[in-house]
Amino acid sequence: MIATSVDFRSDNCGAVAPELIEALVTANSGSALGYGGDALTATLQARFTELFEAPVQVFPVPTGTAANALALAAAATPFGAVYCSPEAHVYTSECNATGFFGGGTKLVPIAGEHGKVSAAALEASIAAAGVGLAHKSQPAAVNLVQATDRGAVYALDEVAAVSGVAHAHGLRVHMDGARFANALARLGCTPAQATWRSGVDVLSFGVTKNGGLLADAIVVFTPAAAVDLGFHLRRAGLVWSKMRFASAQILAYVADDLWLRLAGRANAAATELAAQLESLAGVELVAPVDANELFVDLAPAALSALEAEGFLFQRRGPRLARFVCRWDTSASDISALADGVRRQVTSR
Amino acid sequence: MIATSVDFRSDNCGAVAPELIEALVTANSGSALGYGGDALTATLQARFTELFEAPVQVFPVPTGTAANALALAAAATPFGAVYCSPEAHVYTSECNATGFFGGGTKLVPIAGEHGKVSAAALEASIAAAGVGLAHKSQPAAVNLVQATDRGAVYALDEVAAVSGVAHAHGLRVHMDGARFANALARLGCTPAQATWRSGVDVLSFGVTKNGGLLADAIVVFTPAAAVDLGFHLRRAGLVWSKMRFASAQILAYVADDLWLRLAGRANAAATELAAQLESLAGVELVAPVDANELFVDLAPAALSALEAEGFLFQRRGPRLARFVCRWDTSASDISALADGVRRQVTSR
Amino acid sequence: MIATSVDFRSDNCGAVAPELIEALVTANSGSALGYGGDALTATLQARFTELFEAPVQVFPVPTGTAANALALAAAATPFGAVYCSPEAHVYTSECNATGFFGGGTKLVPIAGEHGKVSAAALEASIAAAGVGLAHKSQPAAVNLVQATDRGAVYALDEVAAVSGVAHAHGLRVHMDGARFANALARLGCTPAQATWRSGVDVLSFGVTKNGGLLADAIVVFTPAAAVDLGFHLRRAGLVWSKMRFASAQILAYVADDLWLRLAGRANAAATELAAQLESLAGVELVAPVDANELFVDLAPAALSALEAEGFLFQRRGPRLARFVCRWDTSASDISALADGVRRQVTSR
Amino acid sequence: MIATSVDFRSDNCGAVAPELIEALVTANSGSALGYGGDALTATLQARFTELFEAPVQVFPVPTGTAANALALAAAATPFGAVYCSPEAHVYTSECNATGFFGGGTKLVPIAGEHGKVSAAALEASIAAAGVGLAHKSQPAAVNLVQATDRGAVYALDEVAAVSGVAHAHGLRVHMDGARFANALARLGCTPAQATWRSGVDVLSFGVTKNGGLLADAIVVFTPAAAVDLGFHLRRAGLVWSKMRFASAQILAYVADDLWLRLAGRANAAATELAAQLESLAGVELVAPVDANELFVDLAPAALSALEAEGFLFQRRGPRLARFVCRWDTSASDISALADGVRRQVTSR
Repeated sequence: MIATSVDFRSDNCGAVAPELIEALVTANSGSALGYGGDALTATLQARFTELFEAPVQVFPVPTGTAANALALAAAATPFGAVYCSPEAHVYTSECNATGFFGGGTKLVPIAGEHGKVSAAALEASIAAAGVGLAHKSQPAAVNLVQATDRGAVYALDEVAAVSGVAHAHGLRVHMDGARFANALARLGCTPAQATWRSGVDVLSFGVTKNGGLLADAIVVFTPAAAVDLGFHLRRAGLVWSKMRFASAQILAYVADDLWLRLAGRANAAATELAAQLESLAGVELVAPVDANELFVDLAPAALSALEAEGFLFQRRGPRLARFVCRWDTSASDISALADGVRRQVTSR
Repeated sequence: MIATSVDFRSDNCGAVAPELIEALVTANSGSALGYGGDALTATLQARFTELFEAPVQVFPVPTGTAANALALAAAATPFGAVYCSPEAHVYTSECNATGFFGGGTKLVPIAGEHGKVSAAALEASIAAAGVGLAHKSQPAAVNLVQATDRGAVYALDEVAAVSGVAHAHGLRVHMDGARFANALARLGCTPAQATWRSGVDVLSFGVTKNGGLLADAIVVFTPAAAVDLGFHLRRAGLVWSKMRFASAQILAYVADDLWLRLAGRANAAATELAAQLESLAGVELVAPVDANELFVDLAPAALSALEAEGFLFQRRGPRLARFVCRWDTSASDISALADGVRRQVTSR
Repeated sequence: MIATSVDFRSDNCGAVAPELIEALVTANSGSALGYGGDALTATLQARFTELFEAPVQVFPVPTGTAANALALAAAATPFGAVYCSPEAHVYTSECNATGFFGGGTKLVPIAGEHGKVSAAALEASIAAAGVGLAHKSQPAAVNLVQATDRGAVYALDEVAAVSGVAHAHGLRVHMDGARFANALARLGCTPAQATWRSGVDVLSFGVTKNGGLLADAIVVFTPAAAVDLGFHLRRAGLVWSKMRFASAQILAYVADDLWLRLAGRANAAATELAAQLESLAGVELVAPVDANELFVDLAPAALSALEAEGFLFQRRGPRLARFVCRWDTSASDISALADGVRRQVTSR
Repeated sequence: MIATSVDFRSDNCGAVAPELIEALVTANSGSALGYGGDALTATLQARFTELFEAPVQVFPVPTGTAANALALAAAATPFGAVYCSPEAHVYTSECNATGFFGGGTKLVPIAGEHGKVSAAALEASIAAAGVGLAHKSQPAAVNLVQATDRGAVYALDEVAAVSGVAHAHGLRVHMDGARFANALARLGCTPAQATWRSGVDVLSFGVTKNGGLLADAIVVFTPAAAVDLGFHLRRAGLVWSKMRFASAQILAYVADDLWLRLAGRANAAATELAAQLESLAGVELVAPVDANELFVDLAPAALSALEAEGFLFQRRGPRLARFVCRWDTSASDISALADGVRRQVTSR
């Protein structure tokens, strides 16, 4: 039996949680001041301060790339170096946005497993960087992706270790939380523990990938790491005049733990898929399945056959497939894919 | 009798047309490729090609500032000059976005009435610019705001005259159409006549101000004026991964002439308000009311009294008020404001 | 009698003071560390601290444009406005350098006579700027050109008045001193009085126009106005590896008051030329001749005739000529030009 | 016996060839138009066209970093990737200049021996780059350093192989020729063979390191690879008003093969030093000595002892020393260093 269009390509291929669209309907009454001068945006500030147990600043932005690039530009200097994993989204998939927003800010890939940055590698890189030498890009910030671009989740002490090294040398800590909810659902800790209590200065707070619509956010824990961010956002054309409709989405996203429930479903789907695949001979999971992504080593012919059957997923190498589970990935999607893979590895 | 919060502050203070939110609900089924690789975005391309009677490229973007800055960066050079009205939004209200996106691109204000650029002033400025001299910012593009930031609408031959001068000297023509629908509703011409048939190379297609939600668009008529725009957008963090929900809004906006009906209502409200005000002694309309905005000269004490009564509007100078009408401005809003003004000018 | 190539085009058309080239010969012995880590550059720091009676930082740079653009980028913000005269070199003649180095920093021309910025106009512009509104370019710095691009010299109290307004609103004060020596020679005050004692935070210290070779300098009085300038210079490719040969030039330039003697000669030549011209009917000096430049209103036919006779000068308008005197402008050059003008205005 | 300050730190620590300073004296007569409109700069264009046997454009610039960054910005796009060796000066030592000038242009290090880029690695990197995908930095240019930052010289067929791959995929080829003369002296070929005949589109023509003073140059072979470069240079504050004194230096540098004689001396010194060192046990040359640099593996204690004796050189790692020979490195300098090293490796 052949699957039709079972879609494991990306988080962003999936549906929006209906609660977010309903929130738009609710928000659409009366008139309100533009550019964030409205009541919903004020509520969002208060709600995130409560959620993160600290007086944070929150800035809704259209995309995760905008969030990352502006947060890093604010945290770093134009002559600065931002350390990251070679797998990091900012390094592989943002079309020079960091350099553009930062006026040249350089991304420096450093070692670590499964898309993580290791504290030891960070320490070594800073030591070799030539601090104070004008020839050299000056260590300015570190970028952690939580969950990583290889589907792993940093333990809290791993985040703290990287932050400790960074802060000891005067670097800022930026967390790319495009899949922050997935990480949080896995860790079972509070948002505060996952971020500023572990040393994070600025967070790209992902919404889109986890049932969101057209908004993500920047959350600032350390005001000195994001001075004048409002002006930088405006200069970059990233401030909606009808901001209240972005704030409404994000408020709905965190209401009643919706975000964690959505992420929990996606994680559970990935866990279930991993369980079905890992027992198969010829199938290797090349990274831990801590969140909602699987990175799977399969024979090239098997990958081609799956594609021919209509399964949708990304190829990340000749033998490497990425399967992304979403909040709206169904049990039948999972078993269809698992069955498909099983057919391939047993038929050869 | 005292008004409470009759809101004439800005187009963006008003409601979203419900059709746009309904379009989000409709779009929210199945899965789709991200970053514009979906069917709705393909439909949008086809729909705009039909709408503008030419093979245009259309790029949804989050804000009008992003649309303007990217369009100008694409049309101009980093060492270029962009001519504009001193009243132009890009000059007064975009926090250096043109320079940021353009790598230094300079805005040069030139004369014209009511927020317009005059063809003669453009000709004179180019003649004095020092074309070919490396010291000098090189004439690169002209920015027309249609309707202008003073509520006026360029006649088609005015646009053509400016375009003619621009093209004769190798400049690109950018139209900031934040209120393009209002202009079109006034002109009663086709979108093609208002743009490329009058010499426009690139258009910022406004949606937000006219019942939109969280998306505007760039429309490219002259491919050479916007080479590689997709990459520039991505580098700037302006490409939503769930693009289909932006495309859906814009499709709904232009379906069944919704956009023109909305703009027509706003224009009619402004016309009605103007009619009620212009007969009053002590009230002067300082610009033509061609679209949905009124710029009114009133005694400072009258302005303060109106504010004290709860009327919401912008002050643009000690004696200058801006009143913006929207698609959802009601007849009672208009008569309340007209009555309020009448009370002020007759009471002194 | 016809002149051959009597050259009043620009300061930079003239000779280098031989002392500067001799200093290169002297500096060319032994080996030294690159990028400013040499003894001559250390001496330059000490010498300028003595010269300016304050612990300044001095950075040799290749050009005045580089000095201006980097100083303004350091003093302003990417979303900032720099106020200047519409005649200012940064505004008219630097090909978007301020915006490029500043990441979009906007130049805002404000009123003033003869290329000056007026304190009152600055106050008014800041008041209208929309401080704190994210739409608006935020007032960040003011640029004074001393002597101005119209040949005038600010009195010390004029500088202090502008600085007073600037500092009261948190703006930095940048002085473009491309003709700083000419101004100083006119004012007869100390370098300290002309700069930081009058409120200047950063100075572009001109050398090239006044007998220099290939180096100018940035002088920082207020460290907070130029944080990390060394890194910004390096990022911009503006730090010579053989810096000692730039430092040697500048040391020779200020040794034994050479710079003031050179400027004094140029100023005296201009004063003499003005004296000879201003008595002639049909000749109008349109700006004060405080330094080494004359701006002269003459009939177009007279200008053409002078050019035809071989006189070299710049046309700044149909009836406007600029004549620049230099340290190496001879008495015979002056009388030749004065005679030439006399012939024109008496022959018609 | 102990050395005092025998200096092998860098090319730029050495003397200027007296011919270049004499050329300044000669150039210092009469008046001339600024910003390159002078006769010497015109002569330079003609001379380089002759030297390179092709109608090149040549632009004197203050530094090699400026040359590299502007050449790459011109050759690449803001969303582009520039491939280079991880040892390349642009990657290790230019403080984000490429990203600054390029508006974010990304440097991507790829494999190769001894500071070279390998054609095979370039081919593989381009294949994996995601050409046409807006997420991805688009392959735009390749940077070759000739001689490399590890002291090696590309053979002509190595350059041609890299260029062949680059051009096949639409990339531009930039050669960083900070030590171009050293490479040429080694190769014994013509400047044309070493550059455009081997596929180079743009060259940073180094002068400073090889007896120069305060000027290097950009040489453009492929006009389409450096469109509007004059404006870009001006915008970056890199165009001297007294350009003729830069052109004079460069003309003197290439007159009578001076540049090749200087480079020949430096190369010969390095060859001699290598010959004396390589026979010693405990001393390992870690890269070929093709030009004027030696990279030597020595015990940390030996390095410290050499420093204590007064020898000047750079440490590039715990066991890695760089020794640079210059045109003014004397035979006694060489034997002093060789003796010093011998004492260290035989004393333990």
